[in-house]
Amino acid sequence: MSLPSQVTLCDVGPRDGLQNEKQTVATEHKVELIQRLQEAGIRRLEATSFVSPKWVPQMGDNVEVMRGIARRPDVAYAVLVPNAKGLEAALPLKPDEIVVFTAASEAFTQKNINCSIAESIERFAPVVAEAKARGIKVRAALSCALGCPYEGEIHPDQVDRVAAQLKAIGVDHLGVSDTIGVGTPRRVQAALERALKHFPLAEVSGHYHDTYGQALANVYASLELGVATFDASVGGLGGCPYAKGATGNVATEDVVFMLNGLGIETGVDIEALVDAAAFISKVLGRPPVSRVARALLAKRQA
Amino acid sequence: MSLPSQVTLCDVGPRDGLQNEKQTVATEHKVELIQRLQEAGIRRLEATSFVSPKWVPQMGDNVEVMRGIARRPDVAYAVLVPNAKGLEAALPLKPDEIVVFTAASEAFTQKNINCSIAESIERFAPVVAEAKARGIKVRAALSCALGCPYEGEIHPDQVDRVAAQLKAIGVDHLGVSDTIGVGTPRRVQAALERALKHFPLAEVSGHYHDTYGQALANVYASLELGVATFDASVGGLGGCPYAKGATGNVATEDVVFMLNGLGIETGVDIEALVDAAAFISKVLGRPPVSRVARALLAKRQA
Repeated sequence: MSLPSQVTLCDVGPRDGLQNEKQTVATEHKVELIQRLQEAGIRRLEATSFVSPKWVPQMGDNVEVMRGIARRPDVAYAVLVPNAKGLEAALPLKPDEIVVFTAASEAFTQKNINCSIAESIERFAPVVAEAKARGIKVRAALSCALGCPYEGEIHPDQVDRVAAQLKAIGVDHLGVSDTIGVGTPRRVQAALERALKHFPLAEVSGHYHDTYGQALANVYASLELGVATFDASVGGLGGCPYAKGATGNVATEDVVFMLNGLGIETGVDIEALVDAAAFISKVLGRPPVSRVARALLAKRQA
Repeated sequence: MSLPSQVTLCDVGPRDGLQNEKQTVATEHKVELIQRLQEAGIRRLEATSFVSPKWVPQMGDNVEVMRGIARRPDVAYAVLVPNAKGLEAALPLKPDEIVVFTAASEAFTQKNINCSIAESIERFAPVVAEAKARGIKVRAALSCALGCPYEGEIHPDQVDRVAAQLKAIGVDHLGVSDTIGVGTPRRVQAALERALKHFPLAEVSGHYHDTYGQALANVYASLELGVATFDASVGGLGGCPYAKGATGNVATEDVVFMLNGLGIETGVDIEALVDAAAFISKVLGRPPVSRVARALLAKRQA
């Protein structure tokens, strides 16, 4: 079985990661993090979100962050947008992509955004249409695609059903998100297979949390299906909002280490990435949670 | 591709794990750890070693540990034995298995046991013969099978060559050990394939370190070849002697979580295993390093 020869990594650290850290990080540090990521070879990243600062105060400096970045033409800058108001606020900053979100779990959607899955999709259908009319690519993050903190295991048919609805409103790309990190390789493959019924291989990505240490095994299992786009978070930024003290997003450097070993091109310099992880971890006043950053930093000290 | 329906886990925490912890653990705590492991469903474990206490003071209480365990007939107790003297000391304690060790790297063998690979094998050939004459199973741990702290990447042909030599002297079982954790799935499969030229599927095991977070992906890749025996260390005990602050042995509970998700039987109760991890981590005065223990303990607290 041959694996993809090239993988695109989307670093979600500056948004998904920092949003879930307890501390709010200064704008200049966010900008420096993004700068370091693009210098390390990251060509796709989630820069910030345009959710109301009432709900997500950590991203209240979204305009300043977008203005602060020395943007490169070869990097795609994505921003999270929950609704028409968010899109309106984001448009002047010229994001390359917007990210809308729903979940494969009804209970999670109710608790998280206070509506049903169908309502959530209906609600952002005009946002998708508006973004596409302006030539902005639309990614949808499908949370709880493997498991839900309220419902438990999620059947792949749920992914199938919601993926079809997202495709129908014009979403370009589907991110299959294991929000609570309970997925294991074969179940991840089953979820991806359902997503691939509706989206082409290049437009399905894996977004795996390492809460139970399964993320890299799940990335490997995804590669076996030909999936070649993954979200990851530098330094493992983000933690897990459902289990305090547990890890969240898989660390970008852990993914890169595996892909390097598999001979798969990412264009990312792992040492520069570890520098970026060390930088932001220092800002947060704690060591990086990723295995690779810890090991490589320990090796440098030795 | 179908995976094995059942996996045997050998918990190496009491020996390989505790030997590489800075602190020496009291005999009673070692005995309690073993007790807890067998109560959690572990049916194969590395109990202690019979290396000179001059070299490994942490295992100086090997006799007391072996005498202290309430042995079960359905559990195989292995002990590490470096030479004839070690075997002689171990025999009265009636181990079910002995473990001898060499490496796939010449430089490592020189630095670690001060001889060539060939000499190391020659040296323990009579130990193997003696153990077998007494009906004791002999496992060989092949260290640095994927990479070496001195030589770097190890070619799978090295595994092939040393596996043949170990088979020739009567070794029953080969443990392919990624001592520094640099292996990635396809390279691990290549190493295992060479081992499988000389040993049957049931007599090849994977011993993976999680230093770079790759261990579970490597276990999954091994399962794809039909390999169904793995070493792991409760709580991720052991650390990495080559990178201070980095992780070593893959945690047993992380492996069990993945195998549970894959529908593969292990006979191990993950909650009882996490209790054992919490117990020994408390003895060591630090939290468990494993993702699963951290997440499940955090969930219990919530």
